[in-house]
Amino acid sequence: MIKSLSVNILLFTCSALCLAQNYYEHNRQAWLSEAENSKPELIISEKKPLQIVDIVPGEQAFQKWEVRNIHPVDSLYNTPFRKKKKVIIDFGDHLTGYFSFSVKTTGATADGPLRLKLTFGEAPSELAVPFDNYTEGLSRAWLQDETITVMYVPETITLTRRLAFRYVKIELLASSPQYDFNIYDIRCQAQTSAKNQPEELPDNVNPVIKEIDRVALNTLKECMQTVYEDGPKRDQRLWIGDMYLEALGNAYSFKQHDITKRCLYLLAGLSGSNGYLLATVIEKPTPRAQDNQFLYEYALLYNLVLKNYLEATKDRKTAEDLWPVAKRQTDIVRNYLQSNGLMDFEKVNQDWWVFFDWKEGLYKEVALQGISIFALKESYQLAKMLGKENEAADLPALTGKMIKAARKNFYDKKSGLFVGTKNKQISYASQIWMILSGVTSNEEGQRSLSALANAPDVCYPGTPYLYHYYIQAMVDCGMHREAKEALMNYWGGMIKKGADTFWEAYDPDNDFISPYDFYPINSYCHAWSCTPIYFIRKYPNIFQE
Amino acid sequence: MIKSLSVNILLFTCSALCLAQNYYEHNRQAWLSEAENSKPELIISEKKPLQIVDIVPGEQAFQKWEVRNIHPVDSLYNTPFRKKKKVIIDFGDHLTGYFSFSVKTTGATADGPLRLKLTFGEAPSELAVPFDNYTEGLSRAWLQDETITVMYVPETITLTRRLAFRYVKIELLASSPQYDFNIYDIRCQAQTSAKNQPEELPDNVNPVIKEIDRVALNTLKECMQTVYEDGPKRDQRLWIGDMYLEALGNAYSFKQHDITKRCLYLLAGLSGSNGYLLATVIEKPTPRAQDNQFLYEYALLYNLVLKNYLEATKDRKTAEDLWPVAKRQTDIVRNYLQSNGLMDFEKVNQDWWVFFDWKEGLYKEVALQGISIFALKESYQLAKMLGKENEAADLPALTGKMIKAARKNFYDKKSGLFVGTKNKQISYASQIWMILSGVTSNEEGQRSLSALANAPDVCYPGTPYLYHYYIQAMVDCGMHREAKEALMNYWGGMIKKGADTFWEAYDPDNDFISPYDFYPINSYCHAWSCTPIYFIRKYPNIFQE
Repeated sequence: MIKSLSVNILLFTCSALCLAQNYYEHNRQAWLSEAENSKPELIISEKKPLQIVDIVPGEQAFQKWEVRNIHPVDSLYNTPFRKKKKVIIDFGDHLTGYFSFSVKTTGATADGPLRLKLTFGEAPSELAVPFDNYTEGLSRAWLQDETITVMYVPETITLTRRLAFRYVKIELLASSPQYDFNIYDIRCQAQTSAKNQPEELPDNVNPVIKEIDRVALNTLKECMQTVYEDGPKRDQRLWIGDMYLEALGNAYSFKQHDITKRCLYLLAGLSGSNGYLLATVIEKPTPRAQDNQFLYEYALLYNLVLKNYLEATKDRKTAEDLWPVAKRQTDIVRNYLQSNGLMDFEKVNQDWWVFFDWKEGLYKEVALQGISIFALKESYQLAKMLGKENEAADLPALTGKMIKAARKNFYDKKSGLFVGTKNKQISYASQIWMILSGVTSNEEGQRSLSALANAPDVCYPGTPYLYHYYIQAMVDCGMHREAKEALMNYWGGMIKKGADTFWEAYDPDNDFISPYDFYPINSYCHAWSCTPIYFIRKYPNIFQE
Repeated sequence: MIKSLSVNILLFTCSALCLAQNYYEHNRQAWLSEAENSKPELIISEKKPLQIVDIVPGEQAFQKWEVRNIHPVDSLYNTPFRKKKKVIIDFGDHLTGYFSFSVKTTGATADGPLRLKLTFGEAPSELAVPFDNYTEGLSRAWLQDETITVMYVPETITLTRRLAFRYVKIELLASSPQYDFNIYDIRCQAQTSAKNQPEELPDNVNPVIKEIDRVALNTLKECMQTVYEDGPKRDQRLWIGDMYLEALGNAYSFKQHDITKRCLYLLAGLSGSNGYLLATVIEKPTPRAQDNQFLYEYALLYNLVLKNYLEATKDRKTAEDLWPVAKRQTDIVRNYLQSNGLMDFEKVNQDWWVFFDWKEGLYKEVALQGISIFALKESYQLAKMLGKENEAADLPALTGKMIKAARKNFYDKKSGLFVGTKNKQISYASQIWMILSGVTSNEEGQRSLSALANAPDVCYPGTPYLYHYYIQAMVDCGMHREAKEALMNYWGGMIKKGADTFWEAYDPDNDFISPYDFYPINSYCHAWSCTPIYFIRKYPNIFQE
């Protein structure tokens, strides 16, 4: 997830800034040291391929690429490759790690180098669609194809690039006519920092839920490296929004809190000079935040991660250490809150990236009001847990005012739906965030979500990220049956289409949806898609019944 | 140099075979150990680029590719590369080694990988002609282009492939639009096992000769690695024919005899089970000979290398150890020698690769007779040096008979030229080998070489390999002025066309000559082209006057 945004200088009260600056400058190095000390160990396991497959056009298949003609791996190992020229290997599951293989001659001495192209795919389409068709937006180098020269045979080759894949295509580009060779001993040194075994679901849980849980656990496991990554294929980095959902899932499954602590400290240590958090941290070669990548709701979600971390671990030392950072984020809301209780949506948009979902045309005024209320409420809860409510004493009054303003300005009593002041778009995002922020009663929430079904020109969710909040909104307002049904349909839908891990973007009606206009560059193992773990395990009465 | 040849089982007398087999089986491991013990140390020196250049079409330039628009290297280091996209770097001299460079952002955080294509060339054409036009003969993977992904920035990248080049083209294939970057600190860890400083030529030597000597020394230096390689770009391996000429050059310049010893032992240790030497040894990953690569005159030239080595080093232990191998090679000639004193040319051709030169249509009957006589004579000299003439007692009579037969069957008294019995082609190769083998008197030799100038449809040399023997033949038969002139014209001609090291193939009238039908895959630093060192320094009265 990447967006280019030229951020204006943010407004702030000088006193808050100066206090924050002093505290931050004093603590940055210590925070980065804490982050380093909390780095989780990577668990390496060696994986071998399961089978050889073909990937061919198929009308009924996901993205119209069908996996078929399954053969044993030995059918590759025993066939001279100069004649074979191309093979697709299936490891049977999503892996993140280092790929290696060996070559040896079939008899005659090797008298010249080999040139091979290796293409790695999380999804079948990546093995079938030519990558060079992609014109930049992201770097085309994220696409996982590598051309290598093997100077000597026999040889064992290990690619230095960490890869994320289930399928590998090997193509012979050049060789000497004087000898033939075998490819053999293909393997992957797969890695993750998820080492604990999550509790198994009871036997009587719906098999679809069980399968969703399994795939969601895999998704989270693959994204848990030395930080919470958004996707092990792309962008391989920490984003606060992904971290929020990964930490939710982790707290109900692997329960490894060091990685959460590491990420909280990394973000604090690399925050902007104004004390606001940058949305994303790139870990390698040395951790650094992406310049100017200020994302409004992500900065606020940091406070929720810290609160949840404190609840799960009782680690008051960390929470107290980072409380001033959380407190500073609440200033972001204060800066844009107007006297009428509404956020200054236009001004926020000028200064920040406002995300909510990858969905073209989504109008975000209502959702912005919702997340702002939600974040302030949760931040106040965090303050109370730390006995610091005096440092956030204004928040209850502020949120009360904001809720009133939202009801007054956004709620259409007739339709039961929330819409913006300047754009009457009816979106899932608007209803969801009004419910999550407590603007609605349970009944109003149920009415608004139900009304979406028959409303005209509804703006639907484009990603599992917003879908998470949709499920949470249904849970919160008592639509338990619907929440379970939606979870089973949406995440179960990906499984029906062949997902081994859940995806960055999913629209049940459009296999080719892509935030980057090129579906092979989508991440097919994406952290923000892992939250069924959390729902299924936090709300057993809803999802395990 | 590679040729596919299906070699029939060779004829031999059983007793000679059995003796050889026993001796070889008993000694193979010890020979390979001696080879390992004699491995020369590689001298590493760090080289930095000289300048930035363009390579553009130019009617007058070698192979019609002109190097121009020279800029300082800083003009690359200081320019953001995302805009520049392509650069050609000139190291100013031929290097063999490992290439590295660094990348750093121009300011903004790097948020995605780079994809770069690096192309390495010994000659300008390699940077300009698309490699994928080459349809196999040799492996296209010899051509030195590598596509790499740089996952993190900043980074220092070192290619694991050992490369041979003067020029490097770097092209940007993909990057993220969020940041720009600089390429800087380009370097090459260049390596050679040539460490001694050859004696300088006197000041008054002709500057063309001096320049030829300098480039020839460079050529040999680049080919001296842990074996005598034929070419550091391609094939990166020991061939007996190249070794013969490299050892000649080395004995008159670097005077490092360990490498010769190593190669002699390697070839013995990896010889065929019949005791005959295979023409080529591939050193990596572990030394092995190329199966069935029996090359007639190369097997015989081994004996000359051993004799020259003994002369230069007085290392009798090695020479005595390997004398049975040399003796065994003389059987090759015996096997095909007919009662009339002529070699059975057709039968040799069935069983062996007969080389002499890369020149289509060259008829080799006369040259075969010549090399056979030459090798037996030299082998007998070796036997005498070791006091083993009783083990080769038949050789003087044999060579006498062969010389007579050659004169009788090949010599056309009218024209003064030597031609074959079944093909009347007039070739340089035929005259050269009749002179070197002592079939001619000096006057006859001079007459035959001079007669080539006005003869019809002459088959000219195609490579510096045969040209070496041409110069030697002129030296031997007293055409000293002509020898110097030919050396200055031929090797000097390569320098005029821009050679930093001498080439595998050179025809003054055809820049595009290639034994592989694709001139960019030619080796432009080729061992067999280094012998001006030897001529200039062995015959100062001829070449230094």
